[in-house]
Amino acid sequence: MTDLQALVDAIAEEIQTREQRGKVADYIPQLAKVDPHHFGIAITTVDGQEFVAGDADLPFSIQSVSKVFALTLALGMVGDRLWNRVGREPSGSAFNSIVQLEHENGRPRNPFINAGAIVVDDILLGGHKPREAIGEIVQFVRFLANDDSIYIDHAVARSEQETGFRNFALAQFMRSFGVIEHPAEQVLGVYFHQCALAMSCRQLSKAGLFLAASGRNPETGRNVVSRDRARRINALMLTCGHYDGSGEFAYRVGLPGKSGVGGGILAVAPGKASIAVWSPGLNVNGNSLLGSQALEIMAQRTGWSIFGA
Amino acid sequence: MTDLQALVDAIAEEIQTREQRGKVADYIPQLAKVDPHHFGIAITTVDGQEFVAGDADLPFSIQSVSKVFALTLALGMVGDRLWNRVGREPSGSAFNSIVQLEHENGRPRNPFINAGAIVVDDILLGGHKPREAIGEIVQFVRFLANDDSIYIDHAVARSEQETGFRNFALAQFMRSFGVIEHPAEQVLGVYFHQCALAMSCRQLSKAGLFLAASGRNPETGRNVVSRDRARRINALMLTCGHYDGSGEFAYRVGLPGKSGVGGGILAVAPGKASIAVWSPGLNVNGNSLLGSQALEIMAQRTGWSIFGA
Amino acid sequence: MTDLQALVDAIAEEIQTREQRGKVADYIPQLAKVDPHHFGIAITTVDGQEFVAGDADLPFSIQSVSKVFALTLALGMVGDRLWNRVGREPSGSAFNSIVQLEHENGRPRNPFINAGAIVVDDILLGGHKPREAIGEIVQFVRFLANDDSIYIDHAVARSEQETGFRNFALAQFMRSFGVIEHPAEQVLGVYFHQCALAMSCRQLSKAGLFLAASGRNPETGRNVVSRDRARRINALMLTCGHYDGSGEFAYRVGLPGKSGVGGGILAVAPGKASIAVWSPGLNVNGNSLLGSQALEIMAQRTGWSIFGA
Amino acid sequence: MTDLQALVDAIAEEIQTREQRGKVADYIPQLAKVDPHHFGIAITTVDGQEFVAGDADLPFSIQSVSKVFALTLALGMVGDRLWNRVGREPSGSAFNSIVQLEHENGRPRNPFINAGAIVVDDILLGGHKPREAIGEIVQFVRFLANDDSIYIDHAVARSEQETGFRNFALAQFMRSFGVIEHPAEQVLGVYFHQCALAMSCRQLSKAGLFLAASGRNPETGRNVVSRDRARRINALMLTCGHYDGSGEFAYRVGLPGKSGVGGGILAVAPGKASIAVWSPGLNVNGNSLLGSQALEIMAQRTGWSIFGA
Repeated sequence: MTDLQALVDAIAEEIQTREQRGKVADYIPQLAKVDPHHFGIAITTVDGQEFVAGDADLPFSIQSVSKVFALTLALGMVGDRLWNRVGREPSGSAFNSIVQLEHENGRPRNPFINAGAIVVDDILLGGHKPREAIGEIVQFVRFLANDDSIYIDHAVARSEQETGFRNFALAQFMRSFGVIEHPAEQVLGVYFHQCALAMSCRQLSKAGLFLAASGRNPETGRNVVSRDRARRINALMLTCGHYDGSGEFAYRVGLPGKSGVGGGILAVAPGKASIAVWSPGLNVNGNSLLGSQALEIMAQRTGWSIFGA
Repeated sequence: MTDLQALVDAIAEEIQTREQRGKVADYIPQLAKVDPHHFGIAITTVDGQEFVAGDADLPFSIQSVSKVFALTLALGMVGDRLWNRVGREPSGSAFNSIVQLEHENGRPRNPFINAGAIVVDDILLGGHKPREAIGEIVQFVRFLANDDSIYIDHAVARSEQETGFRNFALAQFMRSFGVIEHPAEQVLGVYFHQCALAMSCRQLSKAGLFLAASGRNPETGRNVVSRDRARRINALMLTCGHYDGSGEFAYRVGLPGKSGVGGGILAVAPGKASIAVWSPGLNVNGNSLLGSQALEIMAQRTGWSIFGA
Repeated sequence: MTDLQALVDAIAEEIQTREQRGKVADYIPQLAKVDPHHFGIAITTVDGQEFVAGDADLPFSIQSVSKVFALTLALGMVGDRLWNRVGREPSGSAFNSIVQLEHENGRPRNPFINAGAIVVDDILLGGHKPREAIGEIVQFVRFLANDDSIYIDHAVARSEQETGFRNFALAQFMRSFGVIEHPAEQVLGVYFHQCALAMSCRQLSKAGLFLAASGRNPETGRNVVSRDRARRINALMLTCGHYDGSGEFAYRVGLPGKSGVGGGILAVAPGKASIAVWSPGLNVNGNSLLGSQALEIMAQRTGWSIFGA
Repeated sequence: MTDLQALVDAIAEEIQTREQRGKVADYIPQLAKVDPHHFGIAITTVDGQEFVAGDADLPFSIQSVSKVFALTLALGMVGDRLWNRVGREPSGSAFNSIVQLEHENGRPRNPFINAGAIVVDDILLGGHKPREAIGEIVQFVRFLANDDSIYIDHAVARSEQETGFRNFALAQFMRSFGVIEHPAEQVLGVYFHQCALAMSCRQLSKAGLFLAASGRNPETGRNVVSRDRARRINALMLTCGHYDGSGEFAYRVGLPGKSGVGGGILAVAPGKASIAVWSPGLNVNGNSLLGSQALEIMAQRTGWSIFGA
């Protein structure tokens, strides 16, 4: 499998030469400080091999990539009842849009836009205290990645808590419809901490590996979800994982993926590998500009697109 | 491969027992006359075998399924310049919505909603007369299916011409933005005839086979499109092929697909087969209710989902 | 009453010095040719005196000001049944917006946005031919102004017919909801001709005088509408007469008024006078920029605002 | 002036017989307890006479009627700079809609929808503490009504504080755009207390009298605002005072007015009188059903419409 090592090296080299690097998210002050020149890539194959290049071992703020893990955890808790409170359709609007909520009685279109992820966290809260729910999410991600060193960056969480007015608006709005049940402060306490998870590309690709391996973590041998549920989470990532750029990502990369405004993307090649990339600059839809391009090259050279033999 | 024959037989039997059959499209008077009890299914594998059950040889109005063929033809004519005039994102709204057009300067979100397909036909018109463009589309579909008996049902075309006020509105609206260049009457002349193509499930599954076979028609050995373009058309079908039910179809069936209000659906299992189903009753999003269910059973039993190994 | 003559002279002089003159409507080619330096003003008092200045006797295209006369005529024909098909609320959007129609089942918010005026013309068509309906409108306006020299500028009507794609979109869209009953071509035939009425400020102020005089034409002594209906038409002009600038016009001028993209405005000071102004340059909402300013000066100096003693 | 006394008596009698009484606001638990059979009316003429009937001396929650007083107070503090942060156009949507804010960068359309009134309170907060700003509003309303017994119903304020999620959403949303400057909790602290002002019809009609009397309080002889500002506030009430029922109120009643979900309406007949009505049941737009009808009768019989001589 030296091919894959050569591939990630080549991608890292190629990406570093690109001059258009996008725009680092500035609405979370703590994220705005990140150097836009970072780039990392990590591929973990379903047989457990790891191929990394660039800043693949440097932790970054995974932000909305965490929504995949929170959804998986919540589905494990309440099963398909989760879908009573959140939809499964692409939104056709920005990640933080509130318009759709007003038109559809406060029910978010999918669990990967902010509003939907806030509902998922309301479910995770259940009868717990925010601190406990946050603890469970961290434990779950450590379990997925088989790595107890994964942590939450509290400075980032605090930064979002102080400036995340729009997320407060989404939460309060949904509460007015009864779509979330806990006070906005509590639900967003969970949400901001979950988004502040710091992980390296290597850790992220390992955490997502169960989605490429029919729901089973090949390294530990433990089942995370059923084969069917893994497929369905992949389907949601494909149609909704990149906000209003989901169609474009499917068209160019051809793999399920979930992005975060920290510049990370987790992509899944079913039966083959889990891939994580990181480049902090974002495109107009809030997805990593060079991260998307790196995945496009990777998909082309490996032929891993799910859309063709 | 008797398994697949047993499968389509079982599906046809199971579907015929279902009592909720959806609602036959009634806004095109000619379609409203169709008996809701029809059901057909046809699978054509990439090695050329055909497995059919039910009314698989009865022609029906393929309606919007034709948008896949028109898009393929237009891409062959103008290449990626087509994307200057139409987007590649799910719309987040109904198949005939005009709201998005007003918010986005008359540029349709994708080629599979009505507005986008009308732009594609404006491109196909090019310097031709409507009659010629229609002729080219019919020839192309006959070529794809390797079947010269495919025809246009002129009574259906006329019925749409007389009652398709909403499509006239879409075309006039886009023309006000300069997004379409020909008179609405001409572009819709092409559009209504293309939608009025009459095909059986067997013909439809054969016509779509190139999308499952890396762009090549295995029966005739002729290349239709490049491997890359086949993948990309599949990606568009996955994210946009079922209007505002695209996420749901991806979640339940896990295959690229395109539906039509005549009750037909074309689905693609890359590397494996092209599948066509037909049941006239529609669900709330305008997609065949039982057709979707039939494909869900098919995908579960074959394991052909693109989202899992 | 020499005061009013001095006033219109002063206003004409003052307005001619202003350098920001707005932008002449260019989407109707025939209108784009008009010299932006024209300015006219005419006041007709309820006791029949006329005070004019500037180009007050030069005919211009009254465009949407005609909607007041068409509405009055239609109310005379079908009475309050008219309100089954069109609302009475400000739209909160542009004069040619289609978004609201999709959200509210094709029913226009008021008779003074384009969609609403098209419905009014659909009512005026009744069982008639377009030519007859157009004839009735012209006769009615001549009757109101007591002036048989008023005519339709056919070059303008033709120009709109050829380029009014957006109005065709509105009409077709409403027809898809059954809100209009006649073919779009016929209804718009009436609409474009009505909008192409050519009138001078003097004629316009006389035609609108019945609204200032409790529904009665003081010059001819004939009743046009009841006192109540005159009030209600004035109320509609106040809340809806300037599209998405209606609030601003009420705030600054304080009189019921109706604007047209030809640069004309008809304003009504109940119990006092009817006022017409004309300056072809438009503001961002499609209302005459200098015409609005002229009316603001006029209202301040006369104290005719309906909002204060 | 016994005519007016006879009129209010007749109206109170007539209204009490009506069976359709609308629906008492239930989203504020404290308001839901109010008996729907109350009805009060008070007319205060510009020469200081008072004519009352029904429950005209029973205090009720004036809710959004308070927005008129808060706006007047804020204009006194910052003048026309206020309009940098809030518009002057009817909204075309519900009183608590958030859609418009997303489309227009968080700037509310007018000061009488919830979002706009929250901005006004953000201005009133200035450098003060919420308690101080609330105190100023109460003092101002007492000054206007010349009545120191007017008070805030703290149970209502608390009830809104606990359940006003939608208003929290509006405030947080606007803060994300920088349109409001203080924390949502503080601004809404002011807002909920202002809305919880308890006043009788008699008090309310006296408090609004300056708007009928060219900005001057005839009873005390003190100037509240300039004649021009009084006119302009009246214009805003006419175009925006009844949310998405403003056009209807103008059409039927023909007077500037502001409603509240407590069932109160303040109406202004410039140069003649200030009128307050109260009936707790609301129509579909959130305006008092019978209160509107009472004002319609009153306007018809007095001929006080601003739209006709």
